[in-house]
Amino acid sequence: MKITVRIHDGPLAAAERWSVEGAGAVVCFDGIVRPTEAGQPIAGLSYETYDPMAERELARLALEAIERFGLLAVKVEHSRGQVDHGACSFRLRIASSHRKEALAAADWFIDRMKQQVPIWKKPVPVEQTEEMAR
Amino acid sequence: MKITVRIHDGPLAAAERWSVEGAGAVVCFDGIVRPTEAGQPIAGLSYETYDPMAERELARLALEAIERFGLLAVKVEHSRGQVDHGACSFRLRIASSHRKEALAAADWFIDRMKQQVPIWKKPVPVEQTEEMAR
Repeated sequence: MKITVRIHDGPLAAAERWSVEGAGAVVCFDGIVRPTEAGQPIAGLSYETYDPMAERELARLALEAIERFGLLAVKVEHSRGQVDHGACSFRLRIASSHRKEALAAADWFIDRMKQQVPIWKKPVPVEQTEEMAR
Repeated sequence: MKITVRIHDGPLAAAERWSVEGAGAVVCFDGIVRPTEAGQPIAGLSYETYDPMAERELARLALEAIERFGLLAVKVEHSRGQVDHGACSFRLRIASSHRKEALAAADWFIDRMKQQVPIWKKPVPVEQTEEMAR
């Protein structure tokens, strides 16, 4: 059983290789910042995390997911600060023996995270970024 | 809307970067050959594909998934021939605007694939590989 949790400043880099002994299913979920929010174009999203509670809560959820779904390993990464649209701000990786529990656990984890983990996002308007670039 | 389907000889290499314009969720599912089959240790699995029907059926399922779940893109890769345990023999990538449909589509796709796509696997016994190595 293995849990890794990390909050990074800025967008997440491309996923590095992750192999888990005995796994038959590995799910990687990437949350990408979309170019619009509530129908309005945005430059990106800015994430605020309540530290160190955010990491602790993510780890607690990972442990609960492992116990509830019988997983082999969970790795979760989240951004702090600004992430431009098109970039990755959240990555969840789950390894399990079989497929069904890995996919169900990913869905469960993200639902819980949005409810329980102290991470907030706010849209960064397109204008703001353009002004800052001058 | 974008569909990519490929059957490769042998195990699949690590996933290369895959970005889809406007996506908010990208799910990557890797099916890994486990070290046992029906409780017996195995060297790996050997996959037989009925070509070109296997690729055609995978593409048809990808199209159906896109329509059914409102996805942006689907990429599916499968191995042909021997894949040792610990290596990846199947990779499904799905991009969508939102999370729920991407995860649901992955589960749906794999269920259908196992029922409908003419790809068969058989275990490669540990002894057989050892004998071949002599």
